[in-house]
Amino acid sequence: MNSNCEILTLADLCRYLKENDNYLVLTHASPDGDTLGSAYGLKFGLKKLGKKVQVICPDEIPHKYDYFMDDSECDFIPETVVAVDVADIKLLGNMWERFEGRIDLNIDHHVSNTHYAKKLYLDETAAATAESIYEILDELGVEFDTRIANALYTGLSTDTGCFKYGNVTARTHEIAAKLHAIGVDAADINRIMFDTKSKGRVKMETMVLNGAEFHFDERCMILAVTRDIQKKTGCSKSDMEGVASMSRSVEGVLVGVAIKESEKDVFKISLRTYDPLDASEICGKLGGGGHKAAAGCTVKGSLKQAKAAILSAIKEALEEVDARANITQ
Amino acid sequence: MNSNCEILTLADLCRYLKENDNYLVLTHASPDGDTLGSAYGLKFGLKKLGKKVQVICPDEIPHKYDYFMDDSECDFIPETVVAVDVADIKLLGNMWERFEGRIDLNIDHHVSNTHYAKKLYLDETAAATAESIYEILDELGVEFDTRIANALYTGLSTDTGCFKYGNVTARTHEIAAKLHAIGVDAADINRIMFDTKSKGRVKMETMVLNGAEFHFDERCMILAVTRDIQKKTGCSKSDMEGVASMSRSVEGVLVGVAIKESEKDVFKISLRTYDPLDASEICGKLGGGGHKAAAGCTVKGSLKQAKAAILSAIKEALEEVDARANITQ
Repeated sequence: MNSNCEILTLADLCRYLKENDNYLVLTHASPDGDTLGSAYGLKFGLKKLGKKVQVICPDEIPHKYDYFMDDSECDFIPETVVAVDVADIKLLGNMWERFEGRIDLNIDHHVSNTHYAKKLYLDETAAATAESIYEILDELGVEFDTRIANALYTGLSTDTGCFKYGNVTARTHEIAAKLHAIGVDAADINRIMFDTKSKGRVKMETMVLNGAEFHFDERCMILAVTRDIQKKTGCSKSDMEGVASMSRSVEGVLVGVAIKESEKDVFKISLRTYDPLDASEICGKLGGGGHKAAAGCTVKGSLKQAKAAILSAIKEALEEVDARANITQ
Repeated sequence: MNSNCEILTLADLCRYLKENDNYLVLTHASPDGDTLGSAYGLKFGLKKLGKKVQVICPDEIPHKYDYFMDDSECDFIPETVVAVDVADIKLLGNMWERFEGRIDLNIDHHVSNTHYAKKLYLDETAAATAESIYEILDELGVEFDTRIANALYTGLSTDTGCFKYGNVTARTHEIAAKLHAIGVDAADINRIMFDTKSKGRVKMETMVLNGAEFHFDERCMILAVTRDIQKKTGCSKSDMEGVASMSRSVEGVLVGVAIKESEKDVFKISLRTYDPLDASEICGKLGGGGHKAAAGCTVKGSLKQAKAAILSAIKEALEEVDARANITQ
């Protein structure tokens, strides 16, 4: 934690955004709907106030987000660097060293935020960073249009599993209502985000489910997407999103694990948990982190070793939970 | 259509509900979250106004709805019969003949409503009947509590695919926001409704996906749940819900078909379509009906015959769409 990081209120933040210009907005690597929706929503909003804004994403942006993209060139020299939905400077991926110590402003909603920026607006009660961006633009008096609404709705909807998860509050729905009133293309967005699978994805799901493993009295389900499965089904990186949610969807399962072989002998593990388990705590044991119900980590070695490592961390957590349950009985 | 059916405004309806008492509230057969959530929400609300209310469901209520059920006995003689979310008297299943001509009031949101009741409150713009029930109870000055909120949220959320579909409006989210403020157990409800599959269900999905068929340049996907699959996976009726949505979730698919063998040589077909296809029109050709994006019909014969029948109806619809596209080109 950087103790020099200045914490901003909404009013401070809006003053700052008005006073500065020539914004470079950064998203996190492996971009998702919230980091992109927030970055582009902020861009379109600030442009309405006459500001110059460019978004940079460390990785290629999946085509499914095309509906709110613009292809404007950067015709100015960036002065103010803003990271949105980026909890840790390292989440800038291949760009983190370039920007270390150079992030002027960070707008985020992750409890795990490391306070790496000079100034931070952090609303941990927001279901998505896009929720904060809506409030910021509203406070700045921006006139919303469909494109802004589509970008922000994408953030709201993807970070909440389409309003399904425990992070949703009355405010989330209130903002969604406002975005509907503006004319957001919600059904089309949700179709793209939640209900569109490639044929390869369907094949991948079938293969992954065939290899499903259950552990600890069926309280843990493991799904593995090996490189072999990826090759056989031709699945892209974005085709593989959501396997973690599949792993948690079986009755009685408290912790779902998706293990993806990202390169030879490197496994990205995504955890999804239900109360009282804490995914971020479990992944923390293996050098990862995230939220209480969703977290991740990376393990090197064979698939067998990766499974053993995460199973051992889960075993500890389940034993603690069982011990607590015995005490309170 | 019964031309003697009196159409009520919200004010008329509230007056009627205040003036009458001893309500028997009917849900449709094969009950879903909206008919049950609306019926129980109405019951709990009217009871707060001192009314006597009993809910009757033509079929057994699946256990997943237990969290808003009560087991109060009927200690009064019913006087006023109200059908909620029941578009057609025949949807009362084994009870329709008993109640034909005897439904005093029908509260519904289906465009296909047949006006069978003496009085009808029909809001076709409501995403769910539960949306109307919320407005009715609010208008009646009912003090909402968590149980009412849980019942109504269940209706809202299940009829919109958790706020995912095109029927969602700003009002849907506004009501969801109000229910959150009341303290609805949204995440738990959504977990039960959308993210909890039995192990048998997961096995069934895997088997069904293995047998997936594509037709008409991959614009149509067919998933069949034969009795053999049902037997091998031990899936219950409610375990089989949602196969229709799976059938529409593949890229490029305009019409998804789920064929379930409900008894020997009887196939229940569920259709899910995207614009410009009209599911209700296609199913209408085989004596069924429903909404534009979701409809159903029943076909007798072999699986092969059932497939042929629905494929022929879909072919016609696709040809019309293609013809229209050629004209406008």
